[in-house]
Amino acid sequence: MKYPPTLIQLIRELGKLPGVGPKSAQRLAFYLFNQPEEDVRALADALLDAQAALKQCQLCFNITDQDICSVCSDITRNKELICVVEQPADLLAIERSGEYSGLYHVLHGALSPMNGIGPDQLTIQPMLGRLEGADEIILATATTVEGEATAMYLDKLLKDLSVKTSRIAYGLPVGGDLEYADEVTLGRAITNRRAL
Amino acid sequence: MKYPPTLIQLIRELGKLPGVGPKSAQRLAFYLFNQPEEDVRALADALLDAQAALKQCQLCFNITDQDICSVCSDITRNKELICVVEQPADLLAIERSGEYSGLYHVLHGALSPMNGIGPDQLTIQPMLGRLEGADEIILATATTVEGEATAMYLDKLLKDLSVKTSRIAYGLPVGGDLEYADEVTLGRAITNRRAL
Repeated sequence: MKYPPTLIQLIRELGKLPGVGPKSAQRLAFYLFNQPEEDVRALADALLDAQAALKQCQLCFNITDQDICSVCSDITRNKELICVVEQPADLLAIERSGEYSGLYHVLHGALSPMNGIGPDQLTIQPMLGRLEGADEIILATATTVEGEATAMYLDKLLKDLSVKTSRIAYGLPVGGDLEYADEVTLGRAITNRRAL
Repeated sequence: MKYPPTLIQLIRELGKLPGVGPKSAQRLAFYLFNQPEEDVRALADALLDAQAALKQCQLCFNITDQDICSVCSDITRNKELICVVEQPADLLAIERSGEYSGLYHVLHGALSPMNGIGPDQLTIQPMLGRLEGADEIILATATTVEGEATAMYLDKLLKDLSVKTSRIAYGLPVGGDLEYADEVTLGRAITNRRAL
């Protein structure tokens, strides 16, 4: 017995999504087969609508449906701070914290020479064109090897241009038990202790 | 900062998929945003094409793009055997084993009174209309509580009609260490031992 070609095609397309293996793709396809027609159409429409409407902000490369995103066009934001993040999702995570009112710059990745991602594959050149009026650049790339390397690279680049930089703090996650923290995190949390 | 409405809609639709929580839906949406236009269109098209083309086989309720599926219309299959499974994916799993050449019947679920799934919600009535010419009905529902209950229900129903039934064998999975088998499986494997 062979699957109908349309089913094979759907399983193949679903299987291209990150974190969806062949088994999950098959499960999703069978699930969708059992859904009402309008639900499947709603998903397909959402994909096409998002594809048509969404683009990168011309200033900070955040995801937006305008030329300039809602952060960059918000006149109440502090334009002296630019927080550099790897992905739009990171930007949103910081927004949710409610602790930041400056601007952002989305790199769309981190330096990773092994994967062919150098400075030219990120939005570093456009970032250098935005430095006027900025007092401080907060490097909020991930605390992974690639994120750290990117932060160090940007730090050197910006210091050479006499721009003040900072790195997001390392330490214990809030609500975290010391017992369960890895030694590197714990070591940094002690090194970076603050007076009360 | 707020997400553009098209992005919110895409995240909402992706989040309806089984096994995709809000975080995964967001990750998928950002992933899709970074894909070439033709890839997103291919996924949307695959969804709509599958929706338009796929239906249930009029005889066995397998997934198909014809009125009668490729198993039911295959004249070389043994029409004296009908293997009853819960889902189309189970049918395919048995096909892959290469050990079965009879027909199938897909219930599209298992009895689960707690979830409002009784005999009328499954394809049991149409199955009873297919018994002519069938020598043996193999009950291959899952070995879960619901699958067992469904097999027992069908066994009684079919025995009352003087139809021969059988249940797929319980035992150790091939390649399985005795040490790691659960006690119920192991007990059944011993009870159902076969002479060599």
